[in-house]
Amino acid sequence: MKKCIFIPDSFKGTMTSAEICSIMAQAVRTHEPQAELCSVPVADGGEGTVDAFLQAAGGKKVVATVKGPLFEEVPAFYGVLPNKTAVIEMAAAAGLPLVGNKKDAEQTTTFGVGQLLRHAIESGCKTIILGLGGSATNDGGCGAAAAMGAVFRRTDGSTFIPVGGTLQDIASVDLSSLQKVLSDTKILTMCDIENPLCGPTGAAAVFAPQKGASPAAVKRLDCGLLHLAKILQQATGCDISQLPGAGAAGGMGGGMAAFFHSPLQSGIETMLDTVHFDEMLKDTDLVFTGEGKLDSQSLCGKVLSGVARRAKAAGVPLIAVVGDIEGTAADAYKAGISAVFSINRTAVPYAQAKLRSRADLFLTMDNLMRFLKQFAPQF
Amino acid sequence: MKKCIFIPDSFKGTMTSAEICSIMAQAVRTHEPQAELCSVPVADGGEGTVDAFLQAAGGKKVVATVKGPLFEEVPAFYGVLPNKTAVIEMAAAAGLPLVGNKKDAEQTTTFGVGQLLRHAIESGCKTIILGLGGSATNDGGCGAAAAMGAVFRRTDGSTFIPVGGTLQDIASVDLSSLQKVLSDTKILTMCDIENPLCGPTGAAAVFAPQKGASPAAVKRLDCGLLHLAKILQQATGCDISQLPGAGAAGGMGGGMAAFFHSPLQSGIETMLDTVHFDEMLKDTDLVFTGEGKLDSQSLCGKVLSGVARRAKAAGVPLIAVVGDIEGTAADAYKAGISAVFSINRTAVPYAQAKLRSRADLFLTMDNLMRFLKQFAPQF
Repeated sequence: MKKCIFIPDSFKGTMTSAEICSIMAQAVRTHEPQAELCSVPVADGGEGTVDAFLQAAGGKKVVATVKGPLFEEVPAFYGVLPNKTAVIEMAAAAGLPLVGNKKDAEQTTTFGVGQLLRHAIESGCKTIILGLGGSATNDGGCGAAAAMGAVFRRTDGSTFIPVGGTLQDIASVDLSSLQKVLSDTKILTMCDIENPLCGPTGAAAVFAPQKGASPAAVKRLDCGLLHLAKILQQATGCDISQLPGAGAAGGMGGGMAAFFHSPLQSGIETMLDTVHFDEMLKDTDLVFTGEGKLDSQSLCGKVLSGVARRAKAAGVPLIAVVGDIEGTAADAYKAGISAVFSINRTAVPYAQAKLRSRADLFLTMDNLMRFLKQFAPQF
Repeated sequence: MKKCIFIPDSFKGTMTSAEICSIMAQAVRTHEPQAELCSVPVADGGEGTVDAFLQAAGGKKVVATVKGPLFEEVPAFYGVLPNKTAVIEMAAAAGLPLVGNKKDAEQTTTFGVGQLLRHAIESGCKTIILGLGGSATNDGGCGAAAAMGAVFRRTDGSTFIPVGGTLQDIASVDLSSLQKVLSDTKILTMCDIENPLCGPTGAAAVFAPQKGASPAAVKRLDCGLLHLAKILQQATGCDISQLPGAGAAGGMGGGMAAFFHSPLQSGIETMLDTVHFDEMLKDTDLVFTGEGKLDSQSLCGKVLSGVARRAKAAGVPLIAVVGDIEGTAADAYKAGISAVFSINRTAVPYAQAKLRSRADLFLTMDNLMRFLKQFAPQF
């Protein structure tokens, strides 16, 4: 074997993608001391996204002090890849862990996320990848827009920075300064959820309760986002009220689309494009992917499907090593995955299996390498 | 793939060896419509042994009416393989299911087993394989010996057929007629347990309770077997008191050694010899074995170790598909097993895993075949 790539999704609640890459590489290394082993930890836009991109593509971490979710100063960061693409995870400036026990979806802001965007633009980055996820906010991205130059006015003409609880107060928004700052910058938003901005499956109803919103607050937040959608349609001509994914991260999905003309796109595709996965596949003998549970959803726009499509196109064999396999795995075979292996080695419930997952993954990989060496020594 | 052999142990409490062979063959068949598929269901000497040999080697089943464990007439059977070797499972004439709720280790006899031996000899069989296991008896094989011509006498000179409860009454035994009946017949006894005839790990202490013996009866049975060992040493010069395996099947192990000069030998080795496994391995591309739980005992004289030794010597790759894998499987690799796969596809406890074991086995085999077709198309 000359070259092997590891590109697993995390096993949710059990192992991160980076840990899985490391264990897989360790097992393969014992059998293939000479092979080139490439690890591509997969990010979903949430916490850890910047580190994942930096590990996969190289680059450096930039630290910047910005406003946190409660407008306090916090140290945050973003990554700059070798091709000057910036990678920002919104959780770094507006993440739930930053508010501790002061969760309040009506008072929190994405202002710091806008500051990070601006910092990256002013540092010369022409492409920015923004990962949604893990936010403490429900401001529809108004804070971020304000940090980038948007001016929000009340009916009395006074300016303010809207938060979740004051979206209703927006009478108008002036985006001219923001558009100048953006000018020739392209922002790509990683977004793997389909929730709309408002309504029973919208940002407030589904995600605000875990951000500290009471049922009454959820109703107010939902109305606020609906109002914002109307304002934005007037200001930009862009209707986000029906946009799939607009409800991600407290409406940040919708805000990215309308304020920043940013396409909401699949996290894995963004990542695969950014790390030039198609290039990486050249001269590669074998790819290992994986996820916590292989089921009928796995081949619907998630990590496995993205990786499988490209590996298949490049003619590189792909093996999935997963936690659980639900059903027959027929969809996985159809997508071009050669074989699917569960790391479960004994019949024990998940609570126990979880504790031994690292060892089980290593032993499963070790067994697969023995199998390959025996039956496909050309590898 | 031209030829593939399936030779799994049973998954105890879940699937018989024959069922496993059938599922494995079904999965391989879908990928290899032209291959020669050979199933060798493995017997352990107990119930099902005759059927396993007949399925693996061909031959016919002979039915004979003999005395059951309580001296009643019962229909019993044995197998005759194409090379005139007879295969007898003692459970057919002295098995626990034959006594129903009349379990009584002090009153039951192996007489019918001796009748089956005699029937086979008189039909011209020169080699007989006797499987121990599943017996309702504790007579040290005295019943079987009596059926073959041994004459047991009490101190008063009267003759009788000793049962567990009357072993103490044996004053002498005359084996001349028995030896004539045996003359040029070779009997091989399948015995995979190591228990000695008497004492705390002996036949009575360990196995008689499940044959209906009270603690007091266990003590009497143990004394009876000790007495029998002394009588047999006087009569034959053969000391079975320390013989490993003599305690199998209510002392039948010891009786086979002393009355019949039969070696107690590993079940799997007997089976592999009898089906000419080394011959079968010629032109074979791949062997699948398996067992319910792969652990540190698996490579100690059990099915996997026997199959592995011969496959390794013949240079044929061997894959183990098992229920649980305990530990690292290092011993299995060392024994020459190429790879070991668990059928567990999800983290569920055994009670649930058991119910889906057939489907899981099929899907695991299907996946392995896909893997092979992809990576080792020469197969």
